[in-house]
Amino acid sequence: MSTISIGEYILNRIKELRIDTIFGVPGDFNMSLLDLIKYDSELVWCSSANELNASYAADGYSRVRGVSALVTSFGLGELSSMNGIAGSYSEMVSVIHIVGTPRTIVSTSNVTQNHTVGNGDYDIFYKMSSMISAASTNVTLVDAIAEIDRVIQTTITNKRPGYIGIPINMIHARVEVPNIIPLQLSSPKNPEELQSVALKQILKEIKAAKYPTIIVDGGILRHGLEIEVNKFVERSGFPTFSAPMGKGSVNTELANYRGIYCCDEVSLSGIEAEIQKADLLIEIGFIKADFSTGHFSFGLEKTKTISLNSSITIIYHAEYPGIGMHELLPLVTASLPTEKAQFKYSPRIRPKPIDTSTDEITHNYLWNKVPEYIGPNNIIVGEIGSSEVALFNMECPQNTIFISQILWASIGYSVSAAVGAAMADRSRKVYLFVSNDAFLVTAQEISVFIQQGLTPVIFLLKNNSYRTEKLVHGPYCTYNNFKMWEYSRSLNFFGGDDKENETTGKNHAIVGIEAEVNTPQEFESAMRKITQQTDKIHFVEIIMPTEDSCDFNLITDP
Amino acid sequence: MSTISIGEYILNRIKELRIDTIFGVPGDFNMSLLDLIKYDSELVWCSSANELNASYAADGYSRVRGVSALVTSFGLGELSSMNGIAGSYSEMVSVIHIVGTPRTIVSTSNVTQNHTVGNGDYDIFYKMSSMISAASTNVTLVDAIAEIDRVIQTTITNKRPGYIGIPINMIHARVEVPNIIPLQLSSPKNPEELQSVALKQILKEIKAAKYPTIIVDGGILRHGLEIEVNKFVERSGFPTFSAPMGKGSVNTELANYRGIYCCDEVSLSGIEAEIQKADLLIEIGFIKADFSTGHFSFGLEKTKTISLNSSITIIYHAEYPGIGMHELLPLVTASLPTEKAQFKYSPRIRPKPIDTSTDEITHNYLWNKVPEYIGPNNIIVGEIGSSEVALFNMECPQNTIFISQILWASIGYSVSAAVGAAMADRSRKVYLFVSNDAFLVTAQEISVFIQQGLTPVIFLLKNNSYRTEKLVHGPYCTYNNFKMWEYSRSLNFFGGDDKENETTGKNHAIVGIEAEVNTPQEFESAMRKITQQTDKIHFVEIIMPTEDSCDFNLITDP
Repeated sequence: MSTISIGEYILNRIKELRIDTIFGVPGDFNMSLLDLIKYDSELVWCSSANELNASYAADGYSRVRGVSALVTSFGLGELSSMNGIAGSYSEMVSVIHIVGTPRTIVSTSNVTQNHTVGNGDYDIFYKMSSMISAASTNVTLVDAIAEIDRVIQTTITNKRPGYIGIPINMIHARVEVPNIIPLQLSSPKNPEELQSVALKQILKEIKAAKYPTIIVDGGILRHGLEIEVNKFVERSGFPTFSAPMGKGSVNTELANYRGIYCCDEVSLSGIEAEIQKADLLIEIGFIKADFSTGHFSFGLEKTKTISLNSSITIIYHAEYPGIGMHELLPLVTASLPTEKAQFKYSPRIRPKPIDTSTDEITHNYLWNKVPEYIGPNNIIVGEIGSSEVALFNMECPQNTIFISQILWASIGYSVSAAVGAAMADRSRKVYLFVSNDAFLVTAQEISVFIQQGLTPVIFLLKNNSYRTEKLVHGPYCTYNNFKMWEYSRSLNFFGGDDKENETTGKNHAIVGIEAEVNTPQEFESAMRKITQQTDKIHFVEIIMPTEDSCDFNLITDP
Repeated sequence: MSTISIGEYILNRIKELRIDTIFGVPGDFNMSLLDLIKYDSELVWCSSANELNASYAADGYSRVRGVSALVTSFGLGELSSMNGIAGSYSEMVSVIHIVGTPRTIVSTSNVTQNHTVGNGDYDIFYKMSSMISAASTNVTLVDAIAEIDRVIQTTITNKRPGYIGIPINMIHARVEVPNIIPLQLSSPKNPEELQSVALKQILKEIKAAKYPTIIVDGGILRHGLEIEVNKFVERSGFPTFSAPMGKGSVNTELANYRGIYCCDEVSLSGIEAEIQKADLLIEIGFIKADFSTGHFSFGLEKTKTISLNSSITIIYHAEYPGIGMHELLPLVTASLPTEKAQFKYSPRIRPKPIDTSTDEITHNYLWNKVPEYIGPNNIIVGEIGSSEVALFNMECPQNTIFISQILWASIGYSVSAAVGAAMADRSRKVYLFVSNDAFLVTAQEISVFIQQGLTPVIFLLKNNSYRTEKLVHGPYCTYNNFKMWEYSRSLNFFGGDDKENETTGKNHAIVGIEAEVNTPQEFESAMRKITQQTDKIHFVEIIMPTEDSCDFNLITDP
């Protein structure tokens, strides 16, 4: 049998998943692994300013590529990433979290070491991470290969983070490897008999329904079943909506695509009424976000809902465990009547057109205007709050990847997630929309865009306040205020114009437009220039009226 | 019996501890509590850019005041603070962590809510925090008062963080209160008989020793026993050292004070030899930092060490559990012979004097020069790495409070900790020393200095690299590089010169000197101006030679 170092083995498995960038922060216990990454020509190391930001970046990358890798260091590093990892867990994002830990001999002796909490328990952080991971392991020589494979496979099939703790002295330790077989990444086969019962029942209910309606959620994107779901939507002809987290999964050019369905408060007016007309709801790939189905609702009415998910099918109140949509959905599609259902549709509901009576940049103006400057096949990243709500209702160009942390809703996520998304696919342009209140949480990541030679267009929506939280509670409370920054200098401040920098990073991004815009005219002028300079990074500070909030009520006081 | 709202009760107890500032970040589940803080004229709300930074600020405040309060929000907020809380735990810093959680009715039903990980388990974050807290509780109506008191009292007596989760609907819920008795904050009485055995043994060993030597560590500062320890040092006449975490506890003007003892590698040359002369080591208030006693050493030689701690006394190999130094130390002092021990001392070991042959700002120059510009009674905050090692060896003016996170060693800590320290005592000037590599982690907190009208002097040590980590591993590795920023514009970038800001915060700090200095002459010129403008905030970017690292080896590859 041949041997391989454990560090190399991990990296080989990561490359097998077609991951080409590893996110993280250097720390005392992970640098031997970083050496291996550095000397691997197929991998790029992307360092963030801190581990929270790195975890968001890994999350963003995974939403584009299906899986990502994050490297942190024992104790402080992994703890700083916990919020981001928990967000990935709640939104079903696969992240392989590799944590460099102290030497084995240290952690089994009773020495107090720095970065421990001083009580001799080296397992505390592992236990914490296990609570927000699909699988976790601390690598030992005994079963390193099997354990690493188990964690990676579970991460992929469960669409949740997985945790691999590796002692620093094990990175270069060699283990015997059998003939390596590819990772087993496919979902388990559905039990046949139960599946045929479920299928029969679903077809019966569809036949009986007068106005069956489809709602597609984020599970479709996570499991890469866009083709399967679009075949079903097209063949059935049923009116079809996306939930916010499912935005981007359905071909919006299909005649029976009807728009985004959220709860009444944040959907475009009229959408809710269309949903109410349905006598059968078919929800597919549902990520259990209250936000996806209205604040604190119990989801759709069970008595008229069929739910197809990754590992369970629910027909009204009956559950069919183990019946996953990956097999069942194509069977349903294939069994539909060849005659497409015919429905009379009113015109598709669109956002309110631009009110030209004001020369301020209102939400109404902005979200109508933005699509004119964004071509197809790009990536839009929206911060939690106004941007997110506006963006999921916005008409996106074809084949747009839309990224927002809708369920976990951690303010500041978007800036780092945009770094990850941009690293994941340099052929797509990244458009980031972030409010000034969210920007302050993770602003340093501007530096990473520059370091990695990334060329996003960053829109900072400035409303002079902690607007998001003010809508939740306390619009006039000073605890929601913060200092205003020189936002439109951000690219230069964070390293864009420093002569020294041009020599330190081969990819150094060139600063294009840094502008503060106050009127539609200024906005359009900046956008015209930006459109002409696609090889640069741009930053547009958009001054918006303080009391304007995109015509939607957001969340009420919880 | 009278009644009180639970929120008010918590704030009353906090004020009883003479806390006047509460740190944190507004979030969905804590804003009712923030309302109470806002309308309380005895409390100031200090909002950070994110919860990691807020937890560092609370830690810094506690190191000056003895205890602090931190408010975060359920899930994402509390998770972002975990690294900071774990640091407080490991370094024995009392922080009362109050977490606003979802309504009781929600968390006992099975609704999926945003900010949860989606599996219906609302206890995950509580369980995580409990692992790094001295005590924790989720407030219920049944025993709110008793539980809040228990957590606060344990936080104070154990010098560790305590966790109070409070559902948002309980903040205003009223509970009956008995006649309120003051919090019980004193350490428990030592068992008399065992104490007298220990005392007798210690006195016997002291009498027999030829060269007894004292080492004072951070436990003295945490437990506020500076007076007791200085009486012992003075009365005994024994040669006395501080461990790095104990810096500031011993009166450096005492004739028998000898300096800072760390391990050989980072102590001033000659210190280790003095320690080796001792035939009896008396260590007092030892915080079990490997850094305090040498990297990966097992502490001092047990066979010649007596250890006096907050809740245990150890004489060589014999342990006396429950015998705390607060009672025992004064008894030892009182029992010493009236005749002070006489030792012949060589001159006290000082840092190497300035080498005037270079016109660069070297570590050798800087740490010799800095004390000339810092008066007595101020606060010095040092980042992990060169600054910290240099600073604990530096000659500090009398009554300086020295803050650095020596054991937990989370890079970036210093910037936020300096905010907390500055809020804790506005009569003291804060001098912050931070390297460019650490600054990027928490740079946003510059904005908080300005928002709160604080006037620290910030020194950014720029060495063009991740110097700290490079000393640990990989000096020429590009993964340790990062973009250089326009550091000396930081005050203005983060809100210092924005006209709007002057109206939003009553305390708005005025920007004084923002300078980049390359030579001793430029440094001294900037410092002269700074000394004349004590009511402003200053920022000095110090350009240092890349390969210079304060003449100390730092940590070797773990």
